[in-house]
Amino acid sequence: MKDYIIHDEWSIIEEGFNPENQRVSESIFSIGNGRMGQRANFEEKYTGDSLRGSYVAGVYYPDKTKVGWWKNGYPEYFAKVLNAPNWIGISVFVDDMELDLHTCTIVEFRRELNMQKGFLYRNFTAEMPDGKQIAVESYRFCSIAEPDAGLIQYSIQSVNFSGTLKVVPYLDADIINTDSNYDEKFWEEVDRGSNQKQSWITAKTKKLDFQVCTGMQVDIVFNGEYQSIIGDPVDRDRFVSKEFSKEISPGDQVTLYKYAAVVSSENHSKTNLIATCQRILEKVYKKGFVECLKDQEKAWKHKWSESDIVILGDVAAQQGIRFNIFQLNQTYTGEDHRLNIGPKGFTGEKYGGSTYWDTEAYCLPFYMSTADPKVAENLLLYRYNHLKKAIENAELLGFKDGAALYPMVTMNGEECHNEWEITFEEIHRNGAIVYAIFDYIRYTGDEGYLLRNGLEVLIAISRFWAQRVNFSNEKNQYVILGVTGPNEYENNVNNNWYTNHIAVWCMEYTMECLEKFRQSHSKELEGIIEKTGILANELDNWKNICENMYYPEDSTRGIFLQQDGFLDKDIRNVTELPKEDYPINQNWSWDRILRSCYIKQADVLQGFYFFEHKFDLDKLKRNFDFYEPLTVHESSLSPCVHSILASRLGYLEKAYEMYLRTARLDLDDYNNDTEDGCHITSMAGTWMSIVKGFGGLQIIDHQIHLNPFIPNGWEAYSFKINFRNHILNVKVSQDKVEISNRSTEMLRISINGTFHQIEPEQVEEIVA
Amino acid sequence: MKDYIIHDEWSIIEEGFNPENQRVSESIFSIGNGRMGQRANFEEKYTGDSLRGSYVAGVYYPDKTKVGWWKNGYPEYFAKVLNAPNWIGISVFVDDMELDLHTCTIVEFRRELNMQKGFLYRNFTAEMPDGKQIAVESYRFCSIAEPDAGLIQYSIQSVNFSGTLKVVPYLDADIINTDSNYDEKFWEEVDRGSNQKQSWITAKTKKLDFQVCTGMQVDIVFNGEYQSIIGDPVDRDRFVSKEFSKEISPGDQVTLYKYAAVVSSENHSKTNLIATCQRILEKVYKKGFVECLKDQEKAWKHKWSESDIVILGDVAAQQGIRFNIFQLNQTYTGEDHRLNIGPKGFTGEKYGGSTYWDTEAYCLPFYMSTADPKVAENLLLYRYNHLKKAIENAELLGFKDGAALYPMVTMNGEECHNEWEITFEEIHRNGAIVYAIFDYIRYTGDEGYLLRNGLEVLIAISRFWAQRVNFSNEKNQYVILGVTGPNEYENNVNNNWYTNHIAVWCMEYTMECLEKFRQSHSKELEGIIEKTGILANELDNWKNICENMYYPEDSTRGIFLQQDGFLDKDIRNVTELPKEDYPINQNWSWDRILRSCYIKQADVLQGFYFFEHKFDLDKLKRNFDFYEPLTVHESSLSPCVHSILASRLGYLEKAYEMYLRTARLDLDDYNNDTEDGCHITSMAGTWMSIVKGFGGLQIIDHQIHLNPFIPNGWEAYSFKINFRNHILNVKVSQDKVEISNRSTEMLRISINGTFHQIEPEQVEEIVA
Repeated sequence: MKDYIIHDEWSIIEEGFNPENQRVSESIFSIGNGRMGQRANFEEKYTGDSLRGSYVAGVYYPDKTKVGWWKNGYPEYFAKVLNAPNWIGISVFVDDMELDLHTCTIVEFRRELNMQKGFLYRNFTAEMPDGKQIAVESYRFCSIAEPDAGLIQYSIQSVNFSGTLKVVPYLDADIINTDSNYDEKFWEEVDRGSNQKQSWITAKTKKLDFQVCTGMQVDIVFNGEYQSIIGDPVDRDRFVSKEFSKEISPGDQVTLYKYAAVVSSENHSKTNLIATCQRILEKVYKKGFVECLKDQEKAWKHKWSESDIVILGDVAAQQGIRFNIFQLNQTYTGEDHRLNIGPKGFTGEKYGGSTYWDTEAYCLPFYMSTADPKVAENLLLYRYNHLKKAIENAELLGFKDGAALYPMVTMNGEECHNEWEITFEEIHRNGAIVYAIFDYIRYTGDEGYLLRNGLEVLIAISRFWAQRVNFSNEKNQYVILGVTGPNEYENNVNNNWYTNHIAVWCMEYTMECLEKFRQSHSKELEGIIEKTGILANELDNWKNICENMYYPEDSTRGIFLQQDGFLDKDIRNVTELPKEDYPINQNWSWDRILRSCYIKQADVLQGFYFFEHKFDLDKLKRNFDFYEPLTVHESSLSPCVHSILASRLGYLEKAYEMYLRTARLDLDDYNNDTEDGCHITSMAGTWMSIVKGFGGLQIIDHQIHLNPFIPNGWEAYSFKINFRNHILNVKVSQDKVEISNRSTEMLRISINGTFHQIEPEQVEEIVA
Repeated sequence: MKDYIIHDEWSIIEEGFNPENQRVSESIFSIGNGRMGQRANFEEKYTGDSLRGSYVAGVYYPDKTKVGWWKNGYPEYFAKVLNAPNWIGISVFVDDMELDLHTCTIVEFRRELNMQKGFLYRNFTAEMPDGKQIAVESYRFCSIAEPDAGLIQYSIQSVNFSGTLKVVPYLDADIINTDSNYDEKFWEEVDRGSNQKQSWITAKTKKLDFQVCTGMQVDIVFNGEYQSIIGDPVDRDRFVSKEFSKEISPGDQVTLYKYAAVVSSENHSKTNLIATCQRILEKVYKKGFVECLKDQEKAWKHKWSESDIVILGDVAAQQGIRFNIFQLNQTYTGEDHRLNIGPKGFTGEKYGGSTYWDTEAYCLPFYMSTADPKVAENLLLYRYNHLKKAIENAELLGFKDGAALYPMVTMNGEECHNEWEITFEEIHRNGAIVYAIFDYIRYTGDEGYLLRNGLEVLIAISRFWAQRVNFSNEKNQYVILGVTGPNEYENNVNNNWYTNHIAVWCMEYTMECLEKFRQSHSKELEGIIEKTGILANELDNWKNICENMYYPEDSTRGIFLQQDGFLDKDIRNVTELPKEDYPINQNWSWDRILRSCYIKQADVLQGFYFFEHKFDLDKLKRNFDFYEPLTVHESSLSPCVHSILASRLGYLEKAYEMYLRTARLDLDDYNNDTEDGCHITSMAGTWMSIVKGFGGLQIIDHQIHLNPFIPNGWEAYSFKINFRNHILNVKVSQDKVEISNRSTEMLRISINGTFHQIEPEQVEEIVA
């Protein structure tokens, strides 16, 4: 837990340099535009503790896995997002001594991530070891309008000295990836070059041959006058630079504009990579830094108009939620269905930058509600395009006849994870893929998606479940043995209620969809039947399984059991744990965690969250009252689900407590791990805690239902959602709810159980 | 499955060279004397496929572990037996062309492991690529009489050429360990030197500073006349050699005697290592090869007189069982309580050469019955001396107050394994440590061992169990959650019957021993009570747990259940498995194995084997009939237990079938993995299959009970056991049992339920 970020409604601000928090700051102040991202490393040299990171969306490396004891079915590689060639570098020399904040005396320092306008700002005054002082001011952003471009304005002023100032903007492709299993370098040079205006390096990954051409074009302004670059450019293996030297006196200022382009073979033809890079450089250079920054502000204005949440009366909360929305929008824009949302986004390498079930379970609702429906559809298409590989993955594990198991962790559809209890057993993830389709259709009404792509996925996953169950003669019912539920603090259990439930739900939903289209779209359906080869007796089998599935329950307590045998545990509430045992995943051996009753994240309750429409409040209350007190919330994905359910139950304090645990998770470095990157996917959970939790948003029968409440300390809060071409702004105050409807049509919305007609471009006021 | 070893009663023979089996042969033809061991690598250069291995008992390396996903409690290193400096090397040059069987035409080749006399013999005639033929004959052994010495006699005769023969005996400490996690070399040189007579290298391991001085002294005989070595000795980093050149003609013969000493800091002071090496070299050199070989034959004669098993009418079976006894005696002599029995002995690096529960469960009975009781006691002392580390190991996992958990895999008492489901959960191993003490006392009658050492171990292990159980309110009984039983094809299960049973048995046995000594040796007991701090209320707690332990059972079938929920599985006999699925551990993904009903090795039945005296035959029969058909025997430790139980049940065909699966496991490379080394620990199981299975040996109330039967195809078999200073020879024929008693006292023995008095030095004949 840290507390050095200054509270502000629209900006993340650090005043005074905190080198001990540099890695954390580098994560928090990251910038990105969905296609590239950059940790808040300094432009100039920095020899203090730092984790450098430039990331290019979709470019990854299949690193050799590190496995202690190999198991059949383990993947051969672990895909990881790569630290890519450095485009931000600017070396600064004061009379041949290089500027390095690690060795300078820092007179003044401030950095600010301007979330409203989408740029990173920094200024500082540094005294060199020989007493010379310079003042530096920099702006940096990854352009939304020109997503292959990053721009820097970097000004240096002499405070107290006369002498030579040398500025060396450079590109460096000699890159180390901290997260390399065998300390290998992943990049090699393909080409590099310079001309009068531009410099570039094309580098390729040693495997898979991703190519990235990184280029720069620079302008130097001295006391307001444009200068020409002089000095021999340095040009060595994987490195190019330009150089500018000037004799300066106190008060003189040199400003460098560095226009960079990061052009990847994922988006451009390899043969034209350099030309493309040069064209983009020329384009942004012509437009100029100031105009490009204006475009950036405009683009962010648009994003905020669809996704902002305003909290009045609590600046820390306001900053927290805006930070989360900002980072989510920096990470994924939904324009490219090959991309997805890594747990750390563009803010770190950890977890490889790959896709987890977080996307379907936590991120989809955010993007669905705050952007064009196409964005959410692209998240679904990502999985649809991986269907073939999911079928191959299931085959590797002994399944057949078109059954699909989506990977636990993936970049391109192939499994990347190798812990047997997760890779092979945490199969509930397959259910989340189906749930996302259901959720998308429920929200958007786009049932056509099923015919276009969805049904094929549904059928393949249902086939998996039908093969994964077995009939227990002992129980005279179907069971699912050997699984890991969402609560990863239990491994290889039998009949995890959540898994059994979502398995049956998948099969039922698939059959329901097939039945519906059999009546309405029999012709289109025929194509799908032919393509998948689905047979009537398969459906009979599914039906039989669904009707005869076993669910562990405790009838005395009226709860579902997390798994068989759960009640044999020594059941004591988390409050009985000694403080020094927290977090148990750092203090207890794994077996002790496994046999304890403690729950990492929602498991049975994840089912109540997903299938809110299937269980009444009494049932929810009994299960919540039993399981939440056993939950240690040691996953960043845990508190949001509990917050939402607590809101539903009217446990307002619990709801707010759980919300607080995620809202400023990274800003306050709550778990002491933000140095590795921000918790991007759980940020969507924070958003949900407000919209689905405090706001009580549900979609029932194509209509919005709200049951809002407002936490005690807040004056008011408002959120925006984009629902079927209506951009709604819902403002909740202590005594009323105001709703506006930016669209061309009236919308009927249920508020606290009563329907209201919200006319377009009007504000409806409802007394709470 | 291979079949290239020629069947012979006393020797292992290969006729004609099988390069495709070279690694397998290198394992099978290994030699050792308990203090050093050597794979059957060629003395001369060999560039074909080969796994080189020279091993020095007790010298190991703590290699950095390779872990995919770290878990709290994992050890930092994995101890492994090291390939040590090469003492066998002899380079042979024919007119400057080096002899290498991989590039020669092999005219004739034969090798023989003479088990009766304890040496490796080889002869071959090779044609060099230029047509020159030489005939080579070699003898090699690790001396039992002088256990730091290895001796080689190596003769080369020109068949068809006149020219220069150069012979270069060398020592090489530039050693590669195949089994290195990060491709590191483990040895570095401390010192090397030569004088007129001797050469030596002292090498040390990069960690832990084990030092080994390897020396040689050589004699050259040319056509029967001793020669002096000429030629400059080569002396480079980690390498020394001598050199002898001679012009020879067809029929001429050069014989090299290479006397080697391998002197380790485990047994000799580091400061005197070279002097010790020189002294030993001088000693064996003086004695001469022929006399030393005579000593070797004598030592083996003695070993066989205590441990031989004779099978008449089945040469393959005879060879198989003698091979097993031979290798067991080569691996462990019981003179040093710091040593133990690695799964591969001195025949390979796999499994790190560390100690597993194999020792207590499988090996102890062999050494107990075929050698001085001191040997078995040393195996117990090995664990006693590790007690402090076992307590520390338990503390790492959250246990306290002197509870001990012995490691799954260890060299020096510290845990070396890192699969959580094994390391943290396969805790039944703790029970085997106690069982070995019980078994030792039952066999030897040495109850004093408990007061000397045993009780401390018993108390510490009972404390572990008492903390490892928890009370289930649901069951109103104690349970043991989250374990892996002996059947490692189930992980993290609840209430493994075997584990629950052995846990309670440990506590009961400890309490029983305490009670007994309270009456008979109260004073000595007081010392132990003080040392361990054991309290009366601890015993009350143990008693309570023992009386209220839950055991999973199926009352319908009248069987114990392997674990909770076992009957929910899809239960089908192994015979229903398609052949191509075998072995399932190579063909199925791990989750599929786990949720299947298939059993790797005896689990419930391990309990019936250990606790034979606690269950009647009906109970055994019901459990055997249920579990054996579900068992795939994919551990080399599986068939022997089933063979013994089948013998007891009178399932004679099953007993013999199971026996066959282990008896020639390595000779016929049954599992296609002998190239990694021989299955040393399971060899003890083969011995048990005959003595405890076919012979029906049990010790009840200090007396031997035999219930012998003889497999159909055999004329007769006999085995020797050393029981309380009586060396008994039991010979079983189709129609009678003959027993002789080499000792000074009569012994009462029960045969098929009737007691007989076996007088010393007489043969008692009993009609079966």
